[in-house]
Amino acid sequence: MFFASDNSGPVHPEILAALTEANQGYAMAYGADAQMQAVQEKIRRIFEAPDAAVYLVATGTAANSLALATLSQPWQTIFCSPVAHIHEDECNAPEFYSGGAKLTLVPDGDRMTPEALRASIRGEETRGVHGPQRGPVSITQVTERGGVYSIAELQALCGVAKEYGLPVHLDGARFANALVALNASPAEMTWKAGVDAVSFGGTKNGCMGVEAVIFFDPKHAWEFELRRKRGAHLFSKHRYLSAQMEAYLTNDLWLRSARRANDNCARLVEGLRASGATFLHEPQANIVFASFPRATHRRLMGAGASYHLWGAELEGADESEMLACRMVCDWSIGTDQIDQFLSLL
Amino acid sequence: MFFASDNSGPVHPEILAALTEANQGYAMAYGADAQMQAVQEKIRRIFEAPDAAVYLVATGTAANSLALATLSQPWQTIFCSPVAHIHEDECNAPEFYSGGAKLTLVPDGDRMTPEALRASIRGEETRGVHGPQRGPVSITQVTERGGVYSIAELQALCGVAKEYGLPVHLDGARFANALVALNASPAEMTWKAGVDAVSFGGTKNGCMGVEAVIFFDPKHAWEFELRRKRGAHLFSKHRYLSAQMEAYLTNDLWLRSARRANDNCARLVEGLRASGATFLHEPQANIVFASFPRATHRRLMGAGASYHLWGAELEGADESEMLACRMVCDWSIGTDQIDQFLSLL
Amino acid sequence: MFFASDNSGPVHPEILAALTEANQGYAMAYGADAQMQAVQEKIRRIFEAPDAAVYLVATGTAANSLALATLSQPWQTIFCSPVAHIHEDECNAPEFYSGGAKLTLVPDGDRMTPEALRASIRGEETRGVHGPQRGPVSITQVTERGGVYSIAELQALCGVAKEYGLPVHLDGARFANALVALNASPAEMTWKAGVDAVSFGGTKNGCMGVEAVIFFDPKHAWEFELRRKRGAHLFSKHRYLSAQMEAYLTNDLWLRSARRANDNCARLVEGLRASGATFLHEPQANIVFASFPRATHRRLMGAGASYHLWGAELEGADESEMLACRMVCDWSIGTDQIDQFLSLL
Amino acid sequence: MFFASDNSGPVHPEILAALTEANQGYAMAYGADAQMQAVQEKIRRIFEAPDAAVYLVATGTAANSLALATLSQPWQTIFCSPVAHIHEDECNAPEFYSGGAKLTLVPDGDRMTPEALRASIRGEETRGVHGPQRGPVSITQVTERGGVYSIAELQALCGVAKEYGLPVHLDGARFANALVALNASPAEMTWKAGVDAVSFGGTKNGCMGVEAVIFFDPKHAWEFELRRKRGAHLFSKHRYLSAQMEAYLTNDLWLRSARRANDNCARLVEGLRASGATFLHEPQANIVFASFPRATHRRLMGAGASYHLWGAELEGADESEMLACRMVCDWSIGTDQIDQFLSLL
Repeated sequence: MFFASDNSGPVHPEILAALTEANQGYAMAYGADAQMQAVQEKIRRIFEAPDAAVYLVATGTAANSLALATLSQPWQTIFCSPVAHIHEDECNAPEFYSGGAKLTLVPDGDRMTPEALRASIRGEETRGVHGPQRGPVSITQVTERGGVYSIAELQALCGVAKEYGLPVHLDGARFANALVALNASPAEMTWKAGVDAVSFGGTKNGCMGVEAVIFFDPKHAWEFELRRKRGAHLFSKHRYLSAQMEAYLTNDLWLRSARRANDNCARLVEGLRASGATFLHEPQANIVFASFPRATHRRLMGAGASYHLWGAELEGADESEMLACRMVCDWSIGTDQIDQFLSLL
Repeated sequence: MFFASDNSGPVHPEILAALTEANQGYAMAYGADAQMQAVQEKIRRIFEAPDAAVYLVATGTAANSLALATLSQPWQTIFCSPVAHIHEDECNAPEFYSGGAKLTLVPDGDRMTPEALRASIRGEETRGVHGPQRGPVSITQVTERGGVYSIAELQALCGVAKEYGLPVHLDGARFANALVALNASPAEMTWKAGVDAVSFGGTKNGCMGVEAVIFFDPKHAWEFELRRKRGAHLFSKHRYLSAQMEAYLTNDLWLRSARRANDNCARLVEGLRASGATFLHEPQANIVFASFPRATHRRLMGAGASYHLWGAELEGADESEMLACRMVCDWSIGTDQIDQFLSLL
Repeated sequence: MFFASDNSGPVHPEILAALTEANQGYAMAYGADAQMQAVQEKIRRIFEAPDAAVYLVATGTAANSLALATLSQPWQTIFCSPVAHIHEDECNAPEFYSGGAKLTLVPDGDRMTPEALRASIRGEETRGVHGPQRGPVSITQVTERGGVYSIAELQALCGVAKEYGLPVHLDGARFANALVALNASPAEMTWKAGVDAVSFGGTKNGCMGVEAVIFFDPKHAWEFELRRKRGAHLFSKHRYLSAQMEAYLTNDLWLRSARRANDNCARLVEGLRASGATFLHEPQANIVFASFPRATHRRLMGAGASYHLWGAELEGADESEMLACRMVCDWSIGTDQIDQFLSLL
Repeated sequence: MFFASDNSGPVHPEILAALTEANQGYAMAYGADAQMQAVQEKIRRIFEAPDAAVYLVATGTAANSLALATLSQPWQTIFCSPVAHIHEDECNAPEFYSGGAKLTLVPDGDRMTPEALRASIRGEETRGVHGPQRGPVSITQVTERGGVYSIAELQALCGVAKEYGLPVHLDGARFANALVALNASPAEMTWKAGVDAVSFGGTKNGCMGVEAVIFFDPKHAWEFELRRKRGAHLFSKHRYLSAQMEAYLTNDLWLRSARRANDNCARLVEGLRASGATFLHEPQANIVFASFPRATHRRLMGAGASYHLWGAELEGADESEMLACRMVCDWSIGTDQIDQFLSLL
């Protein structure tokens, strides 16, 4: 009953098997391995983007920061949500990699609306050389609060960015979870909607540590390679990144794992709802923000359930006080664990 | 009737005379000139701070950025107003000089309240190594909207910063205007209230281009000197910065000029109020945000008055529509100009 | 017969087994895993340094850049060899991570002498605030040309650094190979000689991708943690770094692998010498720079040997021309491969 | 008899008069002043470059760093002399402004030869993504040792840069002194020879503090403006920079002052040579590196002459020991001072 994070579960056996299989003989270092070639081809095919530039790094923060640095200039501002990972959870990595760009927080809690984005964009670059210049828009899909932008919403946000000639970055740390939630194609959720670069996550969905960065316009390729090396994110024994990503994309492992996580999450939500829990945000993928009484939290945690309270403290006298919590289902959660949890409710 | 900016007026004759007087013979370069010694002593005396480290640069953005970089670390966030000059008007210079620190905008329009500041500080550094760490608080005095923090307000803000062990920077581009408005001593408005470093402006108050940076704790001295040089802000013919600042501080020129600007501004405000104008912010120093009918703007501008409309367009059919504007009085505005303007109202 | 690089071989089976074993259940993310605790304890014990701060990253460039950034200031210069990895092979990563520090190249081809180092240090910081300030000394052990500093040589270099109060960084990408060559203790080769921080390599010696950064003075710990996160080098599923490093340090795997590589390299050197090859540098660990006739290169490469020519071209008419090459033995080279190679000579 | 520096003399009276004259009424701030328009036109005419982008800053380090940052990328290396001001005297400002670019020192003491430059360029970018990429070439004219590149030499150096597609920056802190020494046109010494950007010095030649940055290709204009603002080098009361530069270019003041300095320097050199002094470098403009006996130094300094010994100490027993020194003649040195000095020899 581990719902604390999708960073804590084990690596999917198919990924581990791929690492073992890759561990034969000698391979070219620094991304020139044959498996990277295969990864690139797979991603281009999956995204229907035959010219896309595709690279691997080991952390999501690296993917985001390097992608945004490539799309921006140091005197620009990047538009994102106030709760975006790039703003809240990367210890100024985007500022570091971009050489000091600013982040403009588009007000709205978790998701951007086209109106709020347009207002934020309009608010910048009204002062000539004095203020920051407008830079890329970064959208998180699945959002940090568990929401999933519809294709139409993505199109609308990208449309606003394009009105102003701004590139769009998609932080897809949970790309697969969003995709299966939408039942859309990777192309529809990215370049067809107007996205220019994607952080395509693997780590949170069963890999050991690998994220792809995809640029649909290959003009960014060489600059990204230099930024990756300069950022110390080019792996010498790169085949072990390639092997993870190749396995992830083989036999739809990425989609299977995401579907399993989402399905189990939906089961969890259903059970919570039945028990009278309320939801801070409507759960659309594999993250839940729910609220239920302290007494219930005590019982669940006492029985071994693991998850984070959200702005609340377990200690307290009022047993009936509603305490918010965050629960995440990753690929490794079994239906039995959900049922065990729900039976404790 | 030039009220557009305090960056556009001429240099005070006493400053110009000092430059001419300084133009004799040879002087040590790079800040080792004898006049800099005199400036340092004067500032230490005026601020009752015998150990203060005192430096000169030529622009306010340099003063702010170098001071904040010295007080912060690249992984921190600087707390400031959403309309602070460092956020809106320095093209990411604080981010550049600090090596990529973030700016956290304390909500409140123009001025910080201790409550809002505390809430913002609390909101950061709740995520261990993941989020930015708390860094300096930057307060603007006179604020960008023409307000002046009282000594008690400054004490309260610095008190909140000190609760969390954070240093305080005062952006005093209009330091003198605030001081005469408060009728306080420089020490009271700075270190006695809890301020650690000041950008002490000269340029907007009659100098050609000089700002002092003052650290009350001299431990920052050498780092600041290196940062200033590395930022290309160390003047070779430094005596011409020293001469300006020395003249500025001689015979209370700085206070006389600020008083004149504030007094004329008060006269302007009185006249505007009498004419039925309304004020977006209560004018407390030398900046006015007023609102009056389009027809009046047309008449004034037609007669040669110069100032900025504020989020409004002169063009428009409705002559009675109230249009906001910003007017600034610098030392060079004469009472006759105010009266000429008011008679046109 | 793969001698091209120690970045191309497979991962040692014991490392892979450890990854598989670690793949059970849930583990705290971001370095809070129990195995990291074990790694820290092991390294502290092995280095006889009970207070050392120990961290893991995935690439050698990250280890070097983050360690040097922690030890330096942006206005300083780092002293290193002209062929140091940090200068030649990291695409300005040290400059990036340090915020723009300079690298001063201590003349001497590959290894520093105390005299050359002292002369270089003396040459800097002679210009007050105008030139860069003196920063850390970075020593590479094993050197890029296959040499190994003796303990006395390390002591002498660190002694020069200490004369000027400068910290010392050891780039130990091939730490184990140097250690077994010297038959010294880790403490003797580091802090007892005067080293302050070590990049302790695992990747080139059989790991998949893991390097430890060790600070003997724990005062650097928190800054390093923030720099690592800001650099996007903090792994979420950190246990897979821990597991590698723990296995690497278990049952002396690190020493066994290095000894094997060095021994096979010595056998290779012996054979080359017997065949009349000459050496550009005296091989002391697992890297050889040898020179022999073009015809021999042709024969060897034709038979499947893989290694880099060094400033030379295989194409050419003169069969007897001596062409230089670089050969590296990693842990995975078997004695049979050496013998096969030598028999082809 | 002040020969210590061209940063220590007074401002030319015509410059000061221009500042006084500019001090009338209101002027647009931040470079939009009418005089800046005039400056731009004058420089375009003088350089026969009708499209050139022209900007003013207050320090030579700002001009160099901002120009080089505009021409380079953070992962590149800038080619320059080991004694270039950008390497030795700017406290890592080029590294700071460029975001961490490296400086590759072209061996040769003071001046680059095309051969040495080509060898240095060839030595870089041989390692794909691993090493720094080739960036701009920076040439100093007058060199730091008092030499002047001939037009043919400049053409040859720029030719080497162009072979590799690299832009060329000219550090012309003493541009006028070089120009009158060569009796060439500004266009010949810059874009006709292949120079892309110039730091066009005013400060060392009689201005108070102003340098122009000139890009012959205006595509760099907007980026430079943003970099200048972000670097805190955009003056609010910009007219006082414009006024200096306009006066400097009026009635050939810049050329008259440089000619006077060079002529007096030649007179000094002649006298020194006659006295038996030797020269470390052949003086070609307004800087002299001479060597003569300690006793003579004592006598001259005792009589009030001011200049720097060069790697030597006045204290010492051997009166006949030859001690090197550096002497600089700026515009303010009179022929009488030269003669007074020579009579003391």
